[in-house]
Amino acid sequence: MSNGHKQASIVSIGNELLSGKTVDTNAAYIAGQLRTVGIPVIGIYCVADEEPAIQRKLTLAAEEADILVITGGLGPTDDDLTRQAVAGFLGEELVLREDLLKELRLFFDRRGVPMPRRNDIQAHIPRGATAIENKMGTAPGIRAEFGGKLLFAMPGVPTEMRHMFEASILPELRLLAAGQAMAVTRLRCFGAGESTIAEMIGGAMRRGRNPLVNCTVHLGVITLEIVATAPTVREARVMAAEEERSLRAVLGDLVYGTGDQTLAEVVGELLARADQSLAVAESCTGGLLASLITEIPGSSRYFTYGWVTYSNRAKHTELEVPLEMIDRYGAVSEQVARAMAQGARQKAGADYAIAVTGIAGPGGGSEHKPVGLVYIAVDTRDGAETSRYVFSSDRSFVRYRAAQTALNLLRQKLKLTNLA
Amino acid sequence: MSNGHKQASIVSIGNELLSGKTVDTNAAYIAGQLRTVGIPVIGIYCVADEEPAIQRKLTLAAEEADILVITGGLGPTDDDLTRQAVAGFLGEELVLREDLLKELRLFFDRRGVPMPRRNDIQAHIPRGATAIENKMGTAPGIRAEFGGKLLFAMPGVPTEMRHMFEASILPELRLLAAGQAMAVTRLRCFGAGESTIAEMIGGAMRRGRNPLVNCTVHLGVITLEIVATAPTVREARVMAAEEERSLRAVLGDLVYGTGDQTLAEVVGELLARADQSLAVAESCTGGLLASLITEIPGSSRYFTYGWVTYSNRAKHTELEVPLEMIDRYGAVSEQVARAMAQGARQKAGADYAIAVTGIAGPGGGSEHKPVGLVYIAVDTRDGAETSRYVFSSDRSFVRYRAAQTALNLLRQKLKLTNLA
Repeated sequence: MSNGHKQASIVSIGNELLSGKTVDTNAAYIAGQLRTVGIPVIGIYCVADEEPAIQRKLTLAAEEADILVITGGLGPTDDDLTRQAVAGFLGEELVLREDLLKELRLFFDRRGVPMPRRNDIQAHIPRGATAIENKMGTAPGIRAEFGGKLLFAMPGVPTEMRHMFEASILPELRLLAAGQAMAVTRLRCFGAGESTIAEMIGGAMRRGRNPLVNCTVHLGVITLEIVATAPTVREARVMAAEEERSLRAVLGDLVYGTGDQTLAEVVGELLARADQSLAVAESCTGGLLASLITEIPGSSRYFTYGWVTYSNRAKHTELEVPLEMIDRYGAVSEQVARAMAQGARQKAGADYAIAVTGIAGPGGGSEHKPVGLVYIAVDTRDGAETSRYVFSSDRSFVRYRAAQTALNLLRQKLKLTNLA
Repeated sequence: MSNGHKQASIVSIGNELLSGKTVDTNAAYIAGQLRTVGIPVIGIYCVADEEPAIQRKLTLAAEEADILVITGGLGPTDDDLTRQAVAGFLGEELVLREDLLKELRLFFDRRGVPMPRRNDIQAHIPRGATAIENKMGTAPGIRAEFGGKLLFAMPGVPTEMRHMFEASILPELRLLAAGQAMAVTRLRCFGAGESTIAEMIGGAMRRGRNPLVNCTVHLGVITLEIVATAPTVREARVMAAEEERSLRAVLGDLVYGTGDQTLAEVVGELLARADQSLAVAESCTGGLLASLITEIPGSSRYFTYGWVTYSNRAKHTELEVPLEMIDRYGAVSEQVARAMAQGARQKAGADYAIAVTGIAGPGGGSEHKPVGLVYIAVDTRDGAETSRYVFSSDRSFVRYRAAQTALNLLRQKLKLTNLA
């Protein structure tokens, strides 16, 4: 193997991966683990349980990587052909290992069942390769060296694979990759689009840069991932921290958190720290806002009351929104949003209340009030503020975006209050 | 393209897929969809946002397949290089399409924001290729023919990708694959575990059988997928329909719907058909039940009022649950669940009301009232019925399972009423 940076490729084997029946979660898990020891994954291949197809993918993967990590196809049934394909790829025969056969028999003995004949195959590995112990199942893994490179094959059952990977493979790879350290930091942003944020941070996302900054979007939340590479973990961490500081300086309040933090989590922390309470009144989000808030463990410390006033009558009887107001301005209006928030805060006796009213679609829009129109009001002791938005795309997106925007408005208000 | 069976390969593009941060769910979705039109996927490739690496994987994928389906890397930022890589692979230049630019500008205009300069790139496609409309975002897709084969590139954002795939790509591929027919029917079940259902349907899940029955579980919903293969669509459909009949005969009321139907959708249809209304009162589910109900378009026809009475005081002031009752039996009790449902139905003037109270965890459990304990009450004109459950696993699962079980209880009640 070269003395430079080691790279890995992953080959996931199984018909179920190509039929759409199973999502390949193993590859993401392995990639994440490899990254912690500083080994980047440069390719992932999914292939069916067919010997020539597997061999072809192993050959392709070996061309670009120093380390091949293979999962799946080590079971005892006729469609498990990884063992044979790996032997073919290595140019070695499969040989029966008596010690593995004994282990297998013991595995079945301990369960008090006779070993089915077909499990014999699991005691075979390519000549010259090493078996990797499987504490969670019957199929041993395979470790082999070829042309200065390394190959590991593991079962596809996630629990067996993870156990084997962490116990027997990761420690070796950690040693192998010593001297190539990575630090990863994630900044979570809300309130601007991907392209706006990319423009703000300028050249930070340029390829080949170190630290590298990757940008992903999920339901309006933009995640900037900073990946710093250096000879030691300490140096990598310092580089990532410096990059974080400079991104934060540019993005300011658009950054709401780090890691995997949600807006609801950050808002909850701010409320708990200030010992303040929150109530919500929802129309178009229909319970989603309350659900995001209460998804956080311990949210009962600050969240007390929620109303889903889906009908006009409910807005009136529960939150005391005047029926004349609804008649005059419509249920989707600045006035009604404000009255909902005020009604909710008063009835709940809360420090803060958020109200959301809008048109989630697909029906119910008009020229002046299109689908996606949403009013959000935040009421506090100092009065109410209302904002107007037009979110696009489908019902589910409008609802989610409205709920997240409501949380972000409250976050901004709480930050100002906590500073004061 | 050959006249034999068409095969597809999928190329998923994005650094986040190789860092372990994101699981590639797009590939499984596309593979599942292609299967419904009889096109098997023979390879899935994941590759980073690097032009030469993408080109290499496109070349490999094109060697084995007649159809390439590509996702990711069509965004406006510097790390979105799929457009360039596809052009390179096709051996064509990227050209600016004025009509696409106009569309893009309109997209931003409708939101009242100026189009960032960098979005210009999204109006470029390889010479000779066709743009595919993106109704959910800014990046158009790309359709190109090469050497008698077909290539489709779509954005990586799952909602945009799915919409584009179903609207513009699947119909073409369905026609292309005519003569190799499959019929796929899905039965959605709730109320029993996977192994119980597998035992009930006996040998139906045997490999190699036609129709084949696959079983998947997601958050308590068990989906049985019937895949029938035959020379014509008509024959395949007849086979799938017969299998459906025999499975339904065995599973009875455990089958709540078909296709992608959710419990909330089925309950909504039953309510709308009977012209009945529903209110909900939630404690541990914290708005999730209301959110599932209102996720369905048109739910305002039957859903009017929801309360998230997270604190004891809220249960009292909003739903008139006596404080003495909460003191004596606890907020998580059969009595309080019943009183919440009765209070909600009366205040909303609804035909039905559901109430949920429980301990979602991770804290708050005790010996007699463990984490996962949930009481669900359904109140109707004929009185209330309350059921007790202990759901296991984490907070998020307990909440989701409780909300789904509440919907299933209401579904069973509505079916009896509609029959009567």
